[in-house]
Amino acid sequence: MPCADEPLLLTPGPLTTARRVKERMLRDWGSRDEAFVRLNREVLDRLTALVGGSGMVTVPMQGSGSFAVEAMLGSFVPPSGRLLVCVNGAYGQRMAEMARRHGRQVAVLVQPEDQPTDVAALDRMLETDPAISHVAVVHCETTSGILNPLPDVAATAARHRRSLLVDAMSAFGALPLDAGTVPFTAVAASANKCLEGVPGLGFVIARREALAACTGHAPALCLDLPAQHLAMEQTGQWRFTPPTHVIAALHQALLDHEAEGGQPGRLRRYRENCRILVDGMRALGFQTLLPDALQAPIIVTFRLPADPAFDFGRFYDALRRRGFAIYPGKLTAAPSFRIGCIGALGPTEMRAAVQAVADALDELGLRLSTAA
Amino acid sequence: MPCADEPLLLTPGPLTTARRVKERMLRDWGSRDEAFVRLNREVLDRLTALVGGSGMVTVPMQGSGSFAVEAMLGSFVPPSGRLLVCVNGAYGQRMAEMARRHGRQVAVLVQPEDQPTDVAALDRMLETDPAISHVAVVHCETTSGILNPLPDVAATAARHRRSLLVDAMSAFGALPLDAGTVPFTAVAASANKCLEGVPGLGFVIARREALAACTGHAPALCLDLPAQHLAMEQTGQWRFTPPTHVIAALHQALLDHEAEGGQPGRLRRYRENCRILVDGMRALGFQTLLPDALQAPIIVTFRLPADPAFDFGRFYDALRRRGFAIYPGKLTAAPSFRIGCIGALGPTEMRAAVQAVADALDELGLRLSTAA
Repeated sequence: MPCADEPLLLTPGPLTTARRVKERMLRDWGSRDEAFVRLNREVLDRLTALVGGSGMVTVPMQGSGSFAVEAMLGSFVPPSGRLLVCVNGAYGQRMAEMARRHGRQVAVLVQPEDQPTDVAALDRMLETDPAISHVAVVHCETTSGILNPLPDVAATAARHRRSLLVDAMSAFGALPLDAGTVPFTAVAASANKCLEGVPGLGFVIARREALAACTGHAPALCLDLPAQHLAMEQTGQWRFTPPTHVIAALHQALLDHEAEGGQPGRLRRYRENCRILVDGMRALGFQTLLPDALQAPIIVTFRLPADPAFDFGRFYDALRRRGFAIYPGKLTAAPSFRIGCIGALGPTEMRAAVQAVADALDELGLRLSTAA
Repeated sequence: MPCADEPLLLTPGPLTTARRVKERMLRDWGSRDEAFVRLNREVLDRLTALVGGSGMVTVPMQGSGSFAVEAMLGSFVPPSGRLLVCVNGAYGQRMAEMARRHGRQVAVLVQPEDQPTDVAALDRMLETDPAISHVAVVHCETTSGILNPLPDVAATAARHRRSLLVDAMSAFGALPLDAGTVPFTAVAASANKCLEGVPGLGFVIARREALAACTGHAPALCLDLPAQHLAMEQTGQWRFTPPTHVIAALHQALLDHEAEGGQPGRLRRYRENCRILVDGMRALGFQTLLPDALQAPIIVTFRLPADPAFDFGRFYDALRRRGFAIYPGKLTAAPSFRIGCIGALGPTEMRAAVQAVADALDELGLRLSTAA
């Protein structure tokens, strides 16, 4: 159970992983050895299968989720292209910044951090700006924890025959995403969010023909998705040293994901985690940023209490001493903090987290108005 | 001792690491938590200290060593610059390819894979081409295992007032490199070579003023070294999710490196490993590509025996069953294979490796001419 030496991570990732996932890192792998080539292939095939699979292919990318997102944008949007980014938080902003860095033309559809992507506005922008070749959207914006209407965004982009690139980082493996019914070109995610692996690896799942058609666009050799894919198809091996231990851990994490019932099973646990957290925090007088209908069961943004005696640093430390690490806020609009519901945690841990918050408030001599 | 299930890795990395290094990956870290920020800071400070430290700063880079090299080239060579790459193997070629991908002007000084960088030729190129702003060189070319004359290359570049960028991947931590006496601008390396950490992390050690002066050049946001550095200086935190477990493992690996006597201690063990390997293999009839004077004690290239009955795949498998994974050749010129001397291995393991080679030859019914 929780201890200050190794706190449970109520964060959007890196997060708390299962012991057996970490134990898979206790052996070394030769990156060109057949045993590793087989392990790697199984990981990629399992990832592809998570979105339905047919006609799709998974290209892994060393680094972090952002490396996968930047590789996706850099590889798919050609120099002559124009990218429209739907922005309602820091991760949408980051995609726009990446594409600008690559020298691409960028348009943005900006909305407040507590509002989901406006599909009607997207429809109008695609109608009036025929130069837009690609649309990028974040599935769950970790900035606020908001769920964006991905199926509607995808249907709109498809109706206008534009390519859709999805940052599904904090949602992948927990929220539904079926390539058969949601027409996206590529989706980027990482090992260390809802798949509950350790950090160090991102990946892009893309339509095979679209990937083959985007050769030569990437601004950097390391971030070149079709080159990464081609080498792996031809030899089974990575172009550049892979994070072998992280991949072995992800292999175990994918077995565990399947054993839990796959995406629906994982979502069920996270929903329960989120419910316990939100109910418990509201009972203590905290307010969520988002109404329940917009809240993804991934990470919850709470407004900083109005009481001037509430100091986030002291609150963090009091929780940390009780064995829980939470997350600072990232909103530009309102002072806030965040608590994650994902990772190898269940109802017992979430109830303990709420109790720790109650105890921390007591220690700090705070009592929030539950009428607020 | 060696077993087929988990072979010892006689490779240039990923390589065999100590059990206690891997055990540091058995805990999860919050990437914005103070405990991790401290751990990360200590790793960076220890890396800087390895090259002498004064005026230098370490910028870590998620991914692999190649990501660090590409970040170094992309960040330091400005759009108006011209990069001269000294090429005597695949890693020099790769640097030239990266810089071309970034849209930079590239010149190359190409030499055969069994010849060290020709410093007199470099001197003439710098004399006659004043547009060259930066020189890039590989310290130990893993393609052949050759040691390039880094101090002479650095002195030559400095005399012509050009910036030197070093790929020290497979040498860092084992071969001497002192920023006080070797005038380089930046050096790239990774966790999983002679430092004996696990793969998933590269880093660049750079002169502080040079790093500050190269803002805005990088072709990709993820590979932007000054931005990565600035964020870490200001907050102690990474811009994008760090490979926390890999960093914790590197922390242990750096403690072990120090306990072994730092770079001189590590070099001593690798030299002994290399001597046992080369003497043993020569006694069995194998020939090294390089004369001993050019051979770095990192990885040794052996010529494929002329006997047409010698099949590398069968030889690899026979060694693999005996618990040793070796490395295929990468020479363009001559059929070869490679055996590494680095990693958590000592004389006992190297003698066992030579014995395994002898046994493998017996199994395959081969006897090489020791007169060859």
